[in-house]
Amino acid sequence: MTNIEVKTRVKQYQIKIMINSLHHLGTLVTKVWCARQVAVVTDTNVGPYYAKLVTDELTAAGFKVRVMTVPAGEESKSWSQVQSLINQLSAAHFSRSDGVLALGGGVVGDLAGFVASIYMRGIALIQVPTSLLAQVDSSVGGKTAIDLPTGKNLVGSFYQPDLVVIDPAILVTLPPRMLAEGYGEIVKCAALVGGDFWQSLHQITSVAAILPAAPDLIAASVAFKARVVMADEHEQGQRQLLNFGHTIGHAVELLADGQLMHGEAVAIGLVQVCRLFAAHGLAPTSLTSTLKARLMAVGLPTELPPIAPQAVVAVMQHDKKVHGAALTWVYLSAVGQPHLYPIAVKDLATWMGDLWSVS
Amino acid sequence: MTNIEVKTRVKQYQIKIMINSLHHLGTLVTKVWCARQVAVVTDTNVGPYYAKLVTDELTAAGFKVRVMTVPAGEESKSWSQVQSLINQLSAAHFSRSDGVLALGGGVVGDLAGFVASIYMRGIALIQVPTSLLAQVDSSVGGKTAIDLPTGKNLVGSFYQPDLVVIDPAILVTLPPRMLAEGYGEIVKCAALVGGDFWQSLHQITSVAAILPAAPDLIAASVAFKARVVMADEHEQGQRQLLNFGHTIGHAVELLADGQLMHGEAVAIGLVQVCRLFAAHGLAPTSLTSTLKARLMAVGLPTELPPIAPQAVVAVMQHDKKVHGAALTWVYLSAVGQPHLYPIAVKDLATWMGDLWSVS
Repeated sequence: MTNIEVKTRVKQYQIKIMINSLHHLGTLVTKVWCARQVAVVTDTNVGPYYAKLVTDELTAAGFKVRVMTVPAGEESKSWSQVQSLINQLSAAHFSRSDGVLALGGGVVGDLAGFVASIYMRGIALIQVPTSLLAQVDSSVGGKTAIDLPTGKNLVGSFYQPDLVVIDPAILVTLPPRMLAEGYGEIVKCAALVGGDFWQSLHQITSVAAILPAAPDLIAASVAFKARVVMADEHEQGQRQLLNFGHTIGHAVELLADGQLMHGEAVAIGLVQVCRLFAAHGLAPTSLTSTLKARLMAVGLPTELPPIAPQAVVAVMQHDKKVHGAALTWVYLSAVGQPHLYPIAVKDLATWMGDLWSVS
Repeated sequence: MTNIEVKTRVKQYQIKIMINSLHHLGTLVTKVWCARQVAVVTDTNVGPYYAKLVTDELTAAGFKVRVMTVPAGEESKSWSQVQSLINQLSAAHFSRSDGVLALGGGVVGDLAGFVASIYMRGIALIQVPTSLLAQVDSSVGGKTAIDLPTGKNLVGSFYQPDLVVIDPAILVTLPPRMLAEGYGEIVKCAALVGGDFWQSLHQITSVAAILPAAPDLIAASVAFKARVVMADEHEQGQRQLLNFGHTIGHAVELLADGQLMHGEAVAIGLVQVCRLFAAHGLAPTSLTSTLKARLMAVGLPTELPPIAPQAVVAVMQHDKKVHGAALTWVYLSAVGQPHLYPIAVKDLATWMGDLWSVS
């Protein structure tokens, strides 16, 4: 088992990465929670596979479990699901001493985390991410969120869990497309870190190669992310580096209207931001092809879909990462050498124009 | 001007108490905020009096102001108002670098504070409380909330403002009933603190006597509350003392269905909790009449309205202050001598029964 310790200003907790950890969940949870009611929030995809195992584990450990299932998919990151879950907690008389366990991918983690953060001004939370993307990404850092029609993750909170349990064994039930998606996030982390982590990706020449390497790749990604988050909990400095590939990625994801998964959009964003900064002379051209090769090895998309440049720019102007009149980009001058680069919102269209002229 | 410094784990800010501080709001705000968009959230009672002054002050200081008005009254602490305000912020392209200024009583402070805490995972907040109750109570401590049909303040966050500006001069526009309500909260603080603060209340023999004493009474109450909050930001220990009178108060308020103001319900709660603990031999009987005299001097109610004991108990079982199977009460063994006292939820009905038998 890999244990990664996260210390924030308000909380200290562990991320446990272990094959079959789900089969020891009761024991793991009793180390951080005394007996209480637990709302296991899951979705219609994950629930049928693991809700019973989790319920049995927690019940055997003395917890009173109530499973709350939301429809699978990004649409559940909505006000109506927040209200529905909160009404269920209230109807079941959940008190401040009870807890929420998020069992699912990023959507469930974001939604259940947000609900836990605002019900009675915050009740205890444990994250059990079940997708590769959620295991390497959204379960670490305390970000919770729901979407608005005007953009993703526009409402949410920073809220740290008491424990994160990651079981790489359950990735076998993931469709290949979702494995590849999560791997895109691992490529992002490795490109930011460089060194051995980056070198280790050369063994991943297909989606099938991800599974056996998953425990190590997850541990390396999570350890990196935990380091960054500890240094900058509220995303005012270094943590912005984690947005590498997300500026274009978020916009492309929104405009693709459900046709691209988050990790796929980020894969496109990673390659395109490298290309953009290469066009501006701030990054070597070779970096674009290097990154592209790693992502294409598992079949991830790297080229922009046919969308109007103006539409991408318009979406970016509404990005949460806009601070005042500037949008802060992340680029690499080499693998392992990330930098922040603010661009005035009014100059975005001109600056981005180069992207379409060179691609 | 009285300056009270509040230091929490995540933020340090000042509470400024000064006659006519609203006329210097621009200058005060520029000390904590650089130029940005500001959403002034107010309600249909307060807006007509002060929204223009606040807008002029902020505009002259270089801020871009947008006034957002909600209907006056507790009903605005609702999901629909949260969504409406967030949609307005999003439509106006508010970014993480912009801010919310809450201009109003407790409802506006709770609602606008909650919105500020979740929009883009938290944007800057300034509290300008305009009712006496909000000035002494809800603007200090970082509690934000909305209500659910099942209870008050069941959804919310702990979110600290960058600044709190209190102008006792604007209390002249308050109806006497609201002045008395806020004074009830001052009596609560003074009873917890004791000493000179408590003694100073003997000069308040009518509602009219509140206004000239307001700056000192507010300063003493806020200083006390700030001390407690600094020691226990997330209400796990000492901060629970501030719930003195609220256990019965909240239940009575809910059951009175809008007929009692919050401070009136708390006044009843203060006297009844003293009576209850006296009946159980934990407090002197004289304390009940002492407290009652201070509250009745300004016409506050102190006796239970005709409601069924079972109803009060049923509501209490759903109180946020229920931890596991116990509800933690606050009682005084003497003025200035508060204590916490947990009672098992299953014993509440029996324990409370004494209240009706002795009153």
